[in-house]
Parts: sequence; C-alpha cells; structure tokens
Amino acid sequence: MAKSPEVEHPHKAFGWAAKDSSGVLSPFHFSRRDNGVEDVTIKILYCGVCHSDLHAAKNEWGFSRYPLVPGHEIVGIVTKIGSNVKKFKVDDQVGVGVLVNSCKSCEYCDQDLENYCPKMIFTYNAQNHDGTKTYGGYSDTIVVDQHFVLRIPDSMPADGAAPLLCAGITVYSPMKYYGMTEPGKHLGIVGLGGLGHVAVKIGKAFGLKVTVISSSSRKESEALDRLGADSFLVSSDPEKMKAAFGTMDYIIDTVSAVHALAPLLSLLKTNGKLVTLGLPEKPLELPIFPLVLGRKLVGGSDIGGVKETQEMLDFCAKHNITSDVEVIRMDQINTAMDRLAKSDVRYRFVIDVANSLSQSQL
Amino acid sequence: MAKSPEVEHPHKAFGWAAKDSSGVLSPFHFSRRDNGVEDVTIKILYCGVCHSDLHAAKNEWGFSRYPLVPGHEIVGIVTKIGSNVKKFKVDDQVGVGVLVNSCKSCEYCDQDLENYCPKMIFTYNAQNHDGTKTYGGYSDTIVVDQHFVLRIPDSMPADGAAPLLCAGITVYSPMKYYGMTEPGKHLGIVGLGGLGHVAVKIGKAFGLKVTVISSSSRKESEALDRLGADSFLVSSDPEKMKAAFGTMDYIIDTVSAVHALAPLLSLLKTNGKLVTLGLPEKPLELPIFPLVLGRKLVGGSDIGGVKETQEMLDFCAKHNITSDVEVIRMDQINTAMDRLAKSDVRYRFVIDVANSLSQSQL
Repeated sequence: MAKSPEVEHPHKAFGWAAKDSSGVLSPFHFSRRDNGVEDVTIKILYCGVCHSDLHAAKNEWGFSRYPLVPGHEIVGIVTKIGSNVKKFKVDDQVGVGVLVNSCKSCEYCDQDLENYCPKMIFTYNAQNHDGTKTYGGYSDTIVVDQHFVLRIPDSMPADGAAPLLCAGITVYSPMKYYGMTEPGKHLGIVGLGGLGHVAVKIGKAFGLKVTVISSSSRKESEALDRLGADSFLVSSDPEKMKAAFGTMDYIIDTVSAVHALAPLLSLLKTNGKLVTLGLPEKPLELPIFPLVLGRKLVGGSDIGGVKETQEMLDFCAKHNITSDVEVIRMDQINTAMDRLAKSDVRYRFVIDVANSLSQSQL
Repeated sequence: MAKSPEVEHPHKAFGWAAKDSSGVLSPFHFSRRDNGVEDVTIKILYCGVCHSDLHAAKNEWGFSRYPLVPGHEIVGIVTKIGSNVKKFKVDDQVGVGVLVNSCKSCEYCDQDLENYCPKMIFTYNAQNHDGTKTYGGYSDTIVVDQHFVLRIPDSMPADGAAPLLCAGITVYSPMKYYGMTEPGKHLGIVGLGGLGHVAVKIGKAFGLKVTVISSSSRKESEALDRLGADSFLVSSDPEKMKAAFGTMDYIIDTVSAVHALAPLLSLLKTNGKLVTLGLPEKPLELPIFPLVLGRKLVGGSDIGGVKETQEMLDFCAKHNITSDVEVIRMDQINTAMDRLAKSDVRYRFVIDVANSLSQSQL
C-alpha cells in the first residue's frame, strides 16, 4: 500500500495544497526524498503564482490529483548537493521551473528540448520515476535533479526572477525558435498579463518595435510608460485596427480564451508569424487566404528546455529584465487566486515563501 | 475610349476565352504588345490547365473580367527578343508561370519574392502597367518581360514541364521556405491531384519518406507504383490514422475544400509543420492544444518567386521530374474543364496549343 505523503519520504516538508476541486488552498504536511547523488536540495524563498496553478488547483484541465501543491516558478537557496553535483554549491541562488525530470535519452532530450519529452515530469501534479507524486513550490523545500536546476544570476532579485522560470521562458523560447528577434522588426503582443508584460520587456531587449494589442485602452499608459512598449493598439477600435493592417512582422498571442485570429493575421505583413501561447478549450477559426496569399504562419510553443531557460535567465540578467510582481504572504494565496482569475494583478503574484510559510504553520 | 482587345496592340493574337461566368471557352481574337527592349515574344507550344483557370473562367473568386483567356503554365519557343535581352535567344525553350510583372522595387521584389509584391501582375485576368488587360496561355503567342521568363532545360519534355510553372513551384517553394527538405524525414501529402502528385516526386527527390494521405484507397496503387510514394494512408480509416499518429515531420495539404485540420495535426510529430496550399472559402477549425504542446505550426504559401521557379525547374530536370499529363486539343478544353471539376484527370491536362489551336480557328 502506498504510504501517506507525510511519511513516504524521509524528509519532512510543509506547504499549502488544494485538497479538492474547490481549489481552496490550506496548510499541508508532506515529505521530500533524500538528496541523491545527482540532487540539489533547495530552501524555497519565493514562488510565482502562474495561471496554470489556478487551473490545476480547480481541476479545470481534468487531470488534477489531490492533495495538490502548486508552484513552478521557484527561486531558492541551495542547502545540500549530491556527490555528482558540480554545477552548484551550498548557498547558490537557484531556480526550478515547470519540469523536474525527463527521460534524458529521447530525441527531444538529446536536443535540449526536455519540455517536449514524452516522459517529462512536471514540477507538481505529476509522478516521479519512483511512482511518488510531485509537489510544487508553494512549500518550504524541494529536492531536484541537478539537470533541472537553473542558476539565477546574483544580480537578479529573487522575487522578480521567479516568474521568469515559466512566463519568461514561455515567451522567450518561441521568439528564438520562430525567428522573431531581428532588431527593428515590429512585434505585436496580445494580452498584457504575466506572459505579455515579460514579452514586452524581452522584445525591447531584442531591439524590436513593440506594440501592445489590447481590447481596451485601460492599460495604455502602463504599457507605454511603465513597461516601455512603443505603441498601443486597441483591438476593439476598427479604425485603428485598419490603420495597423499589414504593419507587424510578428505577433505573440497570450490569450487563453476563445478569440478571433483573423484580425490578428490581418495585422501581419507578408511572411508574418503569429505564435499562440494560450490554451483555448475550443478550436479557433483559422482563415486560410491570409496564410496562403501572405505566406503567414500560426504556430505554438510550450515553455522551453533547460538549456534555453538558463540562456533566457542570463539574457534577462544582462538586460535587467525581471517580472513586475506583487509579493504576497502564503496565507493570502486564496485571495490572490481569486484576483488572478479576474486578471487583477500587475503582473504576477509571488509568494514570499521563506518569510510567511512558517507563520502560516503556527 | 479604350480600344477593343483585337486592335489595342499591334500584333494579332488568337486564343480561347471565357466570355461570361458560364466559364465556357470559345475562340477569341485579341492582340499582344510590340516586343519591347526588355521583352521576349514566345510562340506557345503547351499550356497546362490549372484549377485556378476553372475558378477564374467561372468567376468563382468574384474578380473575373471577361473576355478571359486563362493559362499560366506556359511552355513555348522564343521567336523575338528585345535589345536588352541577354538571357534568352530565338529558338530557346522557355516558360511563363503565374506572373508576368511586378513593381521590381519593393522589399519583396528585392528579395526575389515577386509573388508577394503588392503590384505583381498575374499572367491573365489582370492589368498591365499600361492599363491593358493580361491574357493567358490558351493562345498562340505571348510577350513577356524577360525577368519573368523561365528557362526550360532542354532535357525536359515541353508538355510535362508546363504544369511545373504553377503546380511545381507551388509545392517546391514551401518545402524550401519552411525547411521541409531534410533527407530521411517523413512527409505526408494530402490530396493527390495536380499539386499532390508533383509533391510526391519532389519529396522523393529531396530524400524524404513520402506518404500519400487520401480519403479513399482508390489511388493507392497509383501513388505507390506509378508515383513512387513510400506509403499510403486512408484518412477515413480510424485504425490506420491512429497507428500513424505522431509519425510525420511535415505535411503538405493541397485540399481546397473545407476540411478538418485536427486529424492532420495529430499525424505530426512534435515540431511538425503543416503547410496548406488550397484556398477553402471558409475558415478551418484550428485546435490550439496540439500547436502549443507539440510546437507545431500551420503555414501557407503561394506559388514562388522567379529565381526560385528557375531553381525548381533545374532541380526537376536534374531529378527527371515532370508532371504526369493528359494532352488535349484546344477544342477539348470545355470537356476537360468539366472533368477537372470532378478531379477526373491523371494528373494535369495540358493543351497542345501549337498543334490544335490553328485547327480550332478554321
């Protein structure tokens, strides 16, 4: 019989978990494995609150297994290393993203694309090779295979760095893969949330002209003044949309709701590329004429591999890019989740795990 | 007042034209311009019958202007050259494809992508720079700017070469642009018509494994034995489709009718690419999950530039690739159009213009 989460591994751990599809999180005692020869044990300092955490907590994708400790935007400090670990030492500032393991031998792992490995193991709500469940970063500590541990440059603030482990790599990877980094080209970004606001910063760092495309003018001054976008396009304004027809080389579409692609495709020049990162439940309508007559493409992308995630972190450090965050205490997580569901956050909640989790435990 | 087609230019020409949206073609006297310093005059030998000719003759795209002489898969012999023409000489075997002019100065023309030039001039049913109409290859002669004239390698039969000027470049160009030419990779081809059958041959010449995907098994032996495909997949067979899930690197989709993309996307491996070349009137349903989770893309492409068309012709000559054709007389064109509408042709009608047009004129 499977042991209870609290005693299946030798080391006690504590976090907050959703216990059912209400998605309400509450304190949860579980355990972490012994630090193996390839492992790094991390004391968690901060953990970002990704929209996926909300989907998973409420079982909105249908494969949640409770209790579920969310969190895959983890920054912490190394407290222990295995004998084969050379890349890290105790006290290093490190990060863990969406993956904690993969098969390490398939064609995707061989190409540093662990994120497309059929046997990749998600940081939470998944199963380790030994059959035990994975628990995420809304917790005090985590033990991770060194290959999946990222170095967080010392110049980066730990709280602002955390969301880069998911939101950052999710926008960086497609920009590299689809060739959307040529300086001077024009990038449109649809949706100014956790992903979109980082995409603005990364796009500017690549030397692109960046336009934020949003359904209302509400975020205009923020986009321009706070985030440094070059222009702002209100997609509900037909005149402004028409004036922008055929002006963009690339579009990053972060919208998860069902929405129209045709107006976005019309903004693209010939040879333009639209990359969609959200996961609408239903198919979108794809008009074929603009694709054929303008040699346009619609592509997707899902996070990124470990090597590219490190590249992204180093790129962000070099360009002083972090996520704009609202730091919360662990016991504020349920309120934060409610606000996140309404997109009421600028632009990412990050839990101050180290300074608030122990209080919650009392 | 505009002059009549017969006298607007100095040189008499004769062909077959659609006179109205019935699409029925009949003899038509018109004229061609004087051969200018940059021009090549061509005596037309053969002209392929593209599905676009049928759409245009019947005004199915809504912008046909009658009388309309179709034909943009033209092979002939040079009979006259302008003083600035150095690339061609009298008696050369040459071809003309979908375009006869462009602006020659925009960013697309500068990149040898005249096919995406906003001022490109189609070979028929379009307007020359001087305001006169363009008439296509269902006619005895044509005068074309040398930049848009292709050299047909002497080793190529003129009739089998003709369809390459449209069908050939339409499948070759996306294979190059989207990087679908890596030897040993697996290419699926949806639809075995004019485009599809040439795609099989070009795919094999690139060293790909080629699977023809068709709704019935009717064309299986032809695909395998006659065209040299490696395998055949019946898309209406759920078991066979399931067995083929995730096995293809690339798909070329030549279907013009509204159809489902989801089953095709499921055939692709991670990082797979689906290029659609048909022009369905309505949007297709695009499921986003496979795009995101498998980093797949759906792209389009429209014919190709002049330089690449020459490259394709030389590639086809080197690999002994021509279109499989059924040669018809000019006066069989209406019957051929009816059969084409039912896809009853293996795989392209080509009009033997030189040997049948004069008879029709009697």
